[in-house]
Amino acid sequence: MSNPQITALIAELPDGVVVTDPDIVASYRQDRAADPDAGTPMAVVRPSNTEQVQTVLRWATAHRIPVVPRGAGTGLSGGATAVDGGIVLSTEKMRDITVDPVTRTAVVQPGLLNAEVKAAVAAHGLWYPPDPSSFEICSIGGNIATNAGGLCCVKYGVTTDYVLGLQVVLADGTAVRLGGPRLKDVAGLSLTKLFVGSEGTLGVITEVTLRLLPAQPASSTVVATFSSVRAACDSVVTITGRIRPAMLEFMDAVSINAVEDKLRMGLDRSAAAMMVAASDERGGAGAADAEYMAEVFAEYGATEVFSTSDPAEGEAFVVARRYAIPAVEAKGALLLEDVGVPLPALADLVAGIEALAAHRDLVISVIAHAGDGNTHPLIVFDPTDADMTRRAELVFGEIMDLAVGLGGTITGEHGVGRLKKPWLAGQIGPEAMELNRRVKRALDPDGILNPGALI
Amino acid sequence: MSNPQITALIAELPDGVVVTDPDIVASYRQDRAADPDAGTPMAVVRPSNTEQVQTVLRWATAHRIPVVPRGAGTGLSGGATAVDGGIVLSTEKMRDITVDPVTRTAVVQPGLLNAEVKAAVAAHGLWYPPDPSSFEICSIGGNIATNAGGLCCVKYGVTTDYVLGLQVVLADGTAVRLGGPRLKDVAGLSLTKLFVGSEGTLGVITEVTLRLLPAQPASSTVVATFSSVRAACDSVVTITGRIRPAMLEFMDAVSINAVEDKLRMGLDRSAAAMMVAASDERGGAGAADAEYMAEVFAEYGATEVFSTSDPAEGEAFVVARRYAIPAVEAKGALLLEDVGVPLPALADLVAGIEALAAHRDLVISVIAHAGDGNTHPLIVFDPTDADMTRRAELVFGEIMDLAVGLGGTITGEHGVGRLKKPWLAGQIGPEAMELNRRVKRALDPDGILNPGALI
Repeated sequence: MSNPQITALIAELPDGVVVTDPDIVASYRQDRAADPDAGTPMAVVRPSNTEQVQTVLRWATAHRIPVVPRGAGTGLSGGATAVDGGIVLSTEKMRDITVDPVTRTAVVQPGLLNAEVKAAVAAHGLWYPPDPSSFEICSIGGNIATNAGGLCCVKYGVTTDYVLGLQVVLADGTAVRLGGPRLKDVAGLSLTKLFVGSEGTLGVITEVTLRLLPAQPASSTVVATFSSVRAACDSVVTITGRIRPAMLEFMDAVSINAVEDKLRMGLDRSAAAMMVAASDERGGAGAADAEYMAEVFAEYGATEVFSTSDPAEGEAFVVARRYAIPAVEAKGALLLEDVGVPLPALADLVAGIEALAAHRDLVISVIAHAGDGNTHPLIVFDPTDADMTRRAELVFGEIMDLAVGLGGTITGEHGVGRLKKPWLAGQIGPEAMELNRRVKRALDPDGILNPGALI
Repeated sequence: MSNPQITALIAELPDGVVVTDPDIVASYRQDRAADPDAGTPMAVVRPSNTEQVQTVLRWATAHRIPVVPRGAGTGLSGGATAVDGGIVLSTEKMRDITVDPVTRTAVVQPGLLNAEVKAAVAAHGLWYPPDPSSFEICSIGGNIATNAGGLCCVKYGVTTDYVLGLQVVLADGTAVRLGGPRLKDVAGLSLTKLFVGSEGTLGVITEVTLRLLPAQPASSTVVATFSSVRAACDSVVTITGRIRPAMLEFMDAVSINAVEDKLRMGLDRSAAAMMVAASDERGGAGAADAEYMAEVFAEYGATEVFSTSDPAEGEAFVVARRYAIPAVEAKGALLLEDVGVPLPALADLVAGIEALAAHRDLVISVIAHAGDGNTHPLIVFDPTDADMTRRAELVFGEIMDLAVGLGGTITGEHGVGRLKKPWLAGQIGPEAMELNRRVKRALDPDGILNPGALI
């Protein structure tokens, strides 16, 4: 089992950092994308500081060993799928955080979970906005590697907007500091931003400096049900042209019913779509925005509209929306999509997905960060049914083709990973592909970092 | 005068695109940094579309001719300083804009001025936030090349936060589209962000897709004068830890008096510092924020505090702040600094600059985007006085050293250009310098794009 290469690495690191136990190693083969083509790595390495990461990467470069960086393993595109003969470099042991309430920044190691970052800064009256639905189980390092989004992005932007600085370890083991706790800084190329969303292909993030905001004000929430999916989608453009909601989410009939099955909260099972919207504007403006959104929903033919300025009552609907993925997951295995389009094409995208589902005889539930035009079609299938699995895989690609045909993207916030790589060139074109490769080669000339992912 | 190389380029482009008239060429040697080491280019090329830019760069690569891209020439770091034997590629003729109010985006050519972009989108009830003080004379292409900031950045972020997509022409003439009108898109490396702030060293921007916001709400404005510079600076940290002002600006005694000399608006000439702050929160929250800021200023010992919710009255103070640079310019030639620090170090930075001014026997006026920790020390000197000029140049570097020593940056929003290049390595370190060079070499292997600037 043990080979001389891994023995050399074990000797260079403290006891327990390198794990070769086959059962443990097997548990690191896949992330939540459950890539069936995952390889078997020779070891899992769990360093606890930057120096250990440098040791690992110097060793990997010397021996040309593929390194798959991994956060909490919650990725949905196979960005952390293991590679035969490589190692998985998990940042799960790197969990320090230092909050500086005066500068309104936090310096965080990559293994801390998003929810833990939020909690640590909240203790100082501060707020880290990016809120992927998986915030309770995903790591901040993974969020940065994928440039993760979430529900409040429609107003507050995505992960990259909150990253002021990084420490990264390059393929050859060099540690580099980029940016820092300065709110504006244009000294040198925008390399901090380049590493955000690079999915472990350019370097390993070992420390992050995050920009924080004052605590979020309380929200007013509006929930509306529609008998028409198109009407629900089209209401979004009217709203975002006028105000800045802090959340503008869409659920279709399948997800409404799946959530109601689990939570029994009285959602309208007959609705074709439900919108969950919020405004966190202060003073009277939040309630005024909620009222405005309620009016727009009604104009677009909403069958029922409910508003509340009670945070607990509003939060119940946010929980319902966040719960949609696990609820639909109860119906079968999921292929989880992440396509996005320019806002006016949202209704066409959702209608097109409905048509594809009918054509392939599959259940596809669509939930969406509607205010960003970013949808998550959930393709339900039974993995023991070979024909259904094949149809699910076919429609997975057809949905991406549909989105790209509507001027959209194959991934709004989950990343390309390995699952979506075959569609990347179709979206960005050969010139941009070549530019991606040039940057990759410049930073990782031996191609040891996350080979097979993204580019 | 004419050489066979430029004759070949003239033959490839429509009449008038290539200008070799020595008087006109001379007017493109410098930007507003007035770099005394500016070279004399062989021609100025003013293309009107992407294809012409491609022709220019294919020609430049074939003949290894240096190309200095130039927007409106308002840069303050010598990013568009001409090079002997090279060409200046001015984007001033590329001025188209298409606003899509439904998607809330605008597709803009680089030569349009920032103010023209703002006006075009305002006609659709929309807002492009970034607002450098020079917004009436600087181009959007230059803004993107420098990742320009401005007064509202403290709440609304900088240029990169509004760039969804770019078309760029690489050194070899390849045109590449990056990103597009999708609010969330993580397909491929974050190359759009890499080009923002690259100061013309990686490619020439020929088209931009900008993200727009609904029109900005009216502001409540607070003006406060202080007898202590440190008290004024320290009030900033208290305010930004609690609320999100839309403007938080600082002026020192020199700039207050220089503005009062010109505008006669009754500013307190005896004040050591003046803060100009605003909140654009809606409903009652803007007035409440203004009241809160007025209270904080009073707690920090403000000698006079004035609040207004009248937009015209508030705007008069913003005009005063924007007018500070031209007003101080009336006192002599200026070396214009752009250093920034983490917020808690702002008072130390300003105090340190005062000490340097005294030591070098110079007038240095400090104005600042205080809420971002980004200051603009204006070093006043007489260019006919050789000793004074030498002292001004010395202190220019000493101020950067001071900022870096306080954990700050040599440039918050103007860019490195040629003037600040000697100080870049001191801030970002040898590893980050090498990473900058690797990316530069990957994208511009012959080094023809803006040689001598940034890296």
